[in-house]
Amino acid sequence: MRFTSATSSDGVTERLFHLGEIPGVLWTPAGATGTRPLVLIGHGGGRHKKDPDVVALARRFVTGLGFAVAAVDVPGHGDRPLHEEYGRLAAENQALVEAGAEPGPLIAEFQALVARRTVPEWRAVLDAVRAVEDVGAGPVGYWGVSLGCGLGVPFVAAEPRVRAAVLGLGGAGAPSSVEAASRITVPVEFPLQWDDERVPRAAGLALFDALASAEKTLHANPGGHGGLPAFELDGAVRFFARHLN
Amino acid sequence: MRFTSATSSDGVTERLFHLGEIPGVLWTPAGATGTRPLVLIGHGGGRHKKDPDVVALARRFVTGLGFAVAAVDVPGHGDRPLHEEYGRLAAENQALVEAGAEPGPLIAEFQALVARRTVPEWRAVLDAVRAVEDVGAGPVGYWGVSLGCGLGVPFVAAEPRVRAAVLGLGGAGAPSSVEAASRITVPVEFPLQWDDERVPRAAGLALFDALASAEKTLHANPGGHGGLPAFELDGAVRFFARHLN
Repeated sequence: MRFTSATSSDGVTERLFHLGEIPGVLWTPAGATGTRPLVLIGHGGGRHKKDPDVVALARRFVTGLGFAVAAVDVPGHGDRPLHEEYGRLAAENQALVEAGAEPGPLIAEFQALVARRTVPEWRAVLDAVRAVEDVGAGPVGYWGVSLGCGLGVPFVAAEPRVRAAVLGLGGAGAPSSVEAASRITVPVEFPLQWDDERVPRAAGLALFDALASAEKTLHANPGGHGGLPAFELDGAVRFFARHLN
Repeated sequence: MRFTSATSSDGVTERLFHLGEIPGVLWTPAGATGTRPLVLIGHGGGRHKKDPDVVALARRFVTGLGFAVAAVDVPGHGDRPLHEEYGRLAAENQALVEAGAEPGPLIAEFQALVARRTVPEWRAVLDAVRAVEDVGAGPVGYWGVSLGCGLGVPFVAAEPRVRAAVLGLGGAGAPSSVEAASRITVPVEFPLQWDDERVPRAAGLALFDALASAEKTLHANPGGHGGLPAFELDGAVRFFARHLN
């Protein structure tokens, strides 16, 4: 793990890093030392590790809770090169949707394919970030919606260090999503947009239903895929405070 | 309105009252004067105004928020006499269910009948309680689940002084429930138990769907009708703090 820059503002230190070919960013309380909970944020489709929404949420976890937060670019996003195979599949899927295919299963299958790469990448990122002195081997949480949910479900299912997760704006579009969700047993908060134009309501409810967690809460609000209310971010802060502190 | 007793403990004054034939209870911060938000709590079926769950929730709104809280007995409950017509209908419904009828529509029709009486009663209670010096004509909220939802939906639909409501553990069992819900426009928080043995999941989701509120949030958690998690009560405190303060 190689840090390439470090800046601090308003009580938050931001360090850019590379882990092999994975570009990432780590936010920690400025001047802090010692072990603290860590939240990994998975960005949405077409976004990246320093998307303004990701940065704003990361700063809230750092300043409000004293946690460390990390985010990395998904292959083909942010500072990573275009990914030839993913790009070709995405174009093929787009053509199928234009020819009348249901997008849900295609998206889910594509995300399951990408997850075969991101799950080991993110596990390696956890190893590296938890070796940083002011992060340490504390409890880990995961926050991801939309693509961050599609990739987050198999990640949380595979990674026993994750003790609580916010996963949402995603659906049970393919059997692999349901299978992975059925292996998740940690507490989950699941935001769902009631009028989501990308994720059918029934698919979102089915993914929530498939989670094996004894504690899981669906938060459904009116509005489309991009309209998650601000108070759900407040809710995520409280959720991680309850489960990682 | 006639107060019949007043006691104070742990910062909360509790006054029992009668308004005509309606027995009620009013909780306020001990020693407070002047106007404050008021939450009306509707108790569940077979319960009453001083059910331990009602008292505990009322005390949280008083001590945590400085609000006033009122609850009254539904006809046939608590300190009210058995109601001959309701008792007969309930027995008839029970016989129909035992003969194989779907309970949902029967329960909803029964609650709609009772609401014809409780809506005007509760509006009169609001008039009376808001005339008390240390309550006053501040913003009003409503909290009710199960029977408290079945009676609360038509009440909140009819009463413009209610600015925010927690309604849940209820379903769209009859067209009248959906019609009343479609006239509700204030912010609503809607707890739903994912494995509710009394309210079919689809009926609960349909009632949430019918609410016309621009801001409404469904909170679904695993478990049966009686298993509402304690953190949903914390959520109700925050919800009313946000909307009535």
